[in-house]
Parts: sequence; structure tokens; C-alpha cells
Amino acid sequence: MKTLLLSKEEVGRLISMKEVIGAVEEAYKAFSGGQVEQPDYIGIHLPEPRGEIDFKVGYCKTNEIISMKASSGGFLDNPDAHGVPNGMGSVLLFDARSCALICVMDGSLLTGLRTGASGAVSVKALARKNAKKITCIGTGNQARMQIRAISLVMQIEEIHAWSRSPETRERFKADIEGEFGIPVILADSKQEAVEQADILITTTRGKGSLVEASWVKPGTHIVAIGTDMKGKQELDPEIFRHAKIVNDSISQCIDKGETWHPLNQKIIGLDDIHAELGEILLGRKPGRENDDEITIFDSTGMAIQDNTTAEKIYRNALENNVGTFFAFL
Amino acid sequence: MKTLLLSKEEVGRLISMKEVIGAVEEAYKAFSGGQVEQPDYIGIHLPEPRGEIDFKVGYCKTNEIISMKASSGGFLDNPDAHGVPNGMGSVLLFDARSCALICVMDGSLLTGLRTGASGAVSVKALARKNAKKITCIGTGNQARMQIRAISLVMQIEEIHAWSRSPETRERFKADIEGEFGIPVILADSKQEAVEQADILITTTRGKGSLVEASWVKPGTHIVAIGTDMKGKQELDPEIFRHAKIVNDSISQCIDKGETWHPLNQKIIGLDDIHAELGEILLGRKPGRENDDEITIFDSTGMAIQDNTTAEKIYRNALENNVGTFFAFL
Repeated sequence: MKTLLLSKEEVGRLISMKEVIGAVEEAYKAFSGGQVEQPDYIGIHLPEPRGEIDFKVGYCKTNEIISMKASSGGFLDNPDAHGVPNGMGSVLLFDARSCALICVMDGSLLTGLRTGASGAVSVKALARKNAKKITCIGTGNQARMQIRAISLVMQIEEIHAWSRSPETRERFKADIEGEFGIPVILADSKQEAVEQADILITTTRGKGSLVEASWVKPGTHIVAIGTDMKGKQELDPEIFRHAKIVNDSISQCIDKGETWHPLNQKIIGLDDIHAELGEILLGRKPGRENDDEITIFDSTGMAIQDNTTAEKIYRNALENNVGTFFAFL
Repeated sequence: MKTLLLSKEEVGRLISMKEVIGAVEEAYKAFSGGQVEQPDYIGIHLPEPRGEIDFKVGYCKTNEIISMKASSGGFLDNPDAHGVPNGMGSVLLFDARSCALICVMDGSLLTGLRTGASGAVSVKALARKNAKKITCIGTGNQARMQIRAISLVMQIEEIHAWSRSPETRERFKADIEGEFGIPVILADSKQEAVEQADILITTTRGKGSLVEASWVKPGTHIVAIGTDMKGKQELDPEIFRHAKIVNDSISQCIDKGETWHPLNQKIIGLDDIHAELGEILLGRKPGRENDDEITIFDSTGMAIQDNTTAEKIYRNALENNVGTFFAFL
């Protein structure tokens, strides 16, 4: 029995964002179709200036793969003190038919890729067909990933961007205009940026409302990425009152997603959550029904997205003879 | 950054049982000394005839290592259908200072080794100094491991053994007499075997009491290995009424160990649990205090035993230039 080893560099050239979008769609469908086991993750918090390492396990019955992703982040001293990035990742894949370890791959790129793809999947299902303008609140790596993925599913005409730091903003503009040729307009205020949006993407580490309800125009689709644990928040909970609310996982979003805030403030009840994105992809619930509704996709991130994306990387590696085999057994 | 890969064959020759005993002692001391984080494990149960795969994470502050062991078992069809064992294991070690992945090793041997060592550590702390005779209820692989480890910490003069299957019994006798030169007397009944014991070791998959209280003579030390999850049981709960009860982890043993049964039947209260084994090793609580008391060591197994044992294997590999380096990053 041999296990395939894949380095970060190999992972990077083994999958396209288009394939990640396909894998994440499969993940959502499998999840909402009851084909997924995804137990609570294990987290270990290290004392400052260290960060956290999480272990996330997912079992997908449709591909018969069990995945385990270990991912660390927030180790601020790492580059200087240890010569390694401040966050790293590793993924194990098991053939669920035998539980043989079939692959160990670097997982540094995986979370960024599958999270980027999640926004694009929601855009296909929930954004207006005539959407042209995207607003980014937050201009870090994940904002770039969102643009990379969404540009594959629609024609983006312009991007309005805001972030706290002028340097980050300027770098974002240069990078995006260079890579995609899409004009980026840097806004002086969040309000100015949000008012332009056909699609609003929030990817900050916000811990309080950044986007007020009165700024969001009818027909906007909101991709809420930043809030993936308790204590984080990006949106005014009032936005949820009349919006069509879609979750990646209802159980996760009501516990630690953006959806928790309006629930906690009794602005909405559980019945006001329209659907999981997978239910819409499976045709069990409608997506957008008119050009005026505000749709919100609350993405907390799921182990099963790692599972299907890593499986695709593994299959591509086998097909293209990339990687190194090692016999642990 | 490079990660060390170790195969099963390499792991097997990189560590002696004596070193495992030392590593498990360190684990118990670190655990009871408050130097360990060991979150609830993640378990995935596959449909029959498949088994289960568990993911156990442990962080040891004394060695600054975070370990993750994935171990599967009960895949009955594996040898015929997939050409692999019915249980396998993999271990990841992270340097907790940076969370860099420093080692991926086969974990097939680890659970057996560290569980075998646990009995020996308890024998040092709790068995009578003049103990000579061991009784094994259950004669599978783990019974062999127990003998292998205990033979390093005391002089075993004879072994009395019982198991349900005559074939297994006979094979155990032949193996143990061949490997250790210790005479093995196969008992016709459990009672006959138990009555001989200075040290009683139970390593079955029992789901009900196998050993009655009236059979256990004063001064016996009991190593209760088999009960590591809810629904399992090997001992008559009455044995606990007047015994000195020692747990590997009190929180685990009262939840899913042999100790749960007498607690559940109100034969004992929480205050009747004398100590964790680590507290005795740290000198915070006494071990055996006279030759008449019956001592029970309830071992449910802890991630931190995997941690310290795997770390020792890793250090030995580095020292002896064994293994293969791979650059994931």
C-alpha cells in the first residue's frame, strides 16, 4: 500500500479555480443531501504570540473519502523565529472503504481556494443575472480569491473596494487591475463603496457591524465570508430583516456565523432562514426569485469543502503522474 | 522545512518497550501535572462490515509537541477485499512552537505499544513487590503486549490464562513460552485463573462482567484494559467497593471506563477514586500501602500516551538517521 505525497507547489499547479468551484458545489450538494458526516472540529489554542491549530474531519459518502485537515494560523513570530509561515496546513485523505491513508498533501492553499470558490457558487445561485459591479469590504488575500473565483462565473465590470489600511487598498487595486484588467475604484468611505454594489463581499476580521442596512440597495447579493467564529461580525443585523438568508450549514451559521447576530437580537427567527446553498443547488429550494430581493450567503466554511477539493487535487495528481509515493505500511 | 516520514517497519525498530514505558510515565505525569491538552476525540463510524476511524489530538506542554493519531479498526473485509489490515494508523507530529509538521509516521504499532506499557507503569506503582503470578483474562495481541511490558518491570514466574477460544489460548501459551520462557497454565475456568493472580490483566472486548468479586484474593493488582468505551465491561462492579481505584484519566474513566459501572450502580462515589496514576508517579498520592489491598488500574487510553511515545520514536529516528525527509512546504 502506497500513500501519495503532494507538496504545496504541486498542489498549487494541480487544480484550477474552476475545478475548485465544481468541487465546492459537490460539497454543498452532498452536505445538504445528507451524504456528509462532519463532526465538531478540534481546536488547540497556544499562548501568545502563538496562534491556533484546528483539526477538521469530513466524511463524504458520495466520494467515499474521509479527510482530515490540520491548519494553523496566527503564529506571528514564525517567519522571524522559525523561518516558516505564520499559518500552515496539512491534509490526510483516507479511502473510506478501507480507511487506508491514500494521500498526505500540504494544505496551505486549500482553505483559501475553497473559501474563494464558495462565494462564486453563491453568485451563480443568488446574484442577479445582470450584476456587474462588485464591492469588496476587506482587501486581503481572501478578497483576491473571491474575485478570482467570481470572475469565472460572471462578467465583472468594476470593483469598488474599501479597507481600513490605505496601503492594503492600493496593493489590492494594483494586483486586481494587473491580474484581471478589471478597474478597481477605491472608495473614501464604506458607505460609498456599498452603495455601488450589485454584489457585496465582506472578508474582514471584523468584530462589529461594518455595513449598515440603509446602504444596501435592493437586488444586492451579499457574500459574507469573514464571520466564521463566535465574536466576529461584519453586517448590521438589520440587513437580515427583509433579506433572503442562505447558509452554507444552518447548524454552523446559527452557532457562529453572521446569521447568529440577527437571531440573537430576535430580528429574525430560525424560520426566516431560507435555505442551505446545497438545497438550492439540489433544486429543493428556489434561489433568487426577483431582481429586488437582497440575498445573503453566510459562509462559515465546512470540512467537506476541504474533502471534495482535496480529492480533486489527488485525482488530478494520479492522472498527471505528479507527486511522490511512500509506503508507510 | 522538511518533514520526516517513518514507515511501520522503521517505527518497529526505532523504539524498545522499555522506552515506551518511560514515555508513558512521562505522559501520565504531564497529564496529572496539568501540562496536557487533550480534547474530545473525533470518531467516524462506517456502515458494516466496515469499522471505525478515530482522530485523537494531544498537546503536551512539557515537550511542546502536538500529536494527531488517526486510527482505524474493525474493517473485517480489508484483508480480502482491499489487501490491507483491518485496522491501520497514522500519526502527525507538530512542533508546538510553530505548528510546523515535523513528522508523519505509521501508527499501526503505536496504540498496542503504549497500551501495553500502561499496565507495566501501573504494576511498578501498585502491584505487591512480591508479586510473581499473572493471570490473563483475554489472550489476544494486547495480552501479549502487557506481558512484554510487565516482564521488564518484574520477574514473572508463571502466567495463568483464560480466553473464550481454545485455539487463541493455545497460541498464546506457545507464543509466550517461546518468547519469554515463562510457563503458561491454561485454566479451565475464569475463576480458577483469577484465584491464582497476584496481578490480573483483563484485555477482552467484554460487554458484561467477566470476573466476580469473590474470586479476587487480597493483595491483587488489577490492570483493566479492555473497557475504553461505553457499553464495555470486564469486572464485577463489586470489586470496586473495597479496592484502591486508580484511573489513567478520571474524567475519561468515569465517563467510559470500567470505573463507570460501580459509579452508575452507586457502589462507589466519585470520592472513592483514589488517584490518577500520574498523581502517584508525581508523589502527590500514595500508591499501594499494604500487601492486602486490592488495587485497580482502569486504563481508557489517552492521546498524550501517543504523543510522548511518538515523540520518542521521532527523536530516535533523528539520532539514528532513520527515515525519509519530504518537503511539503
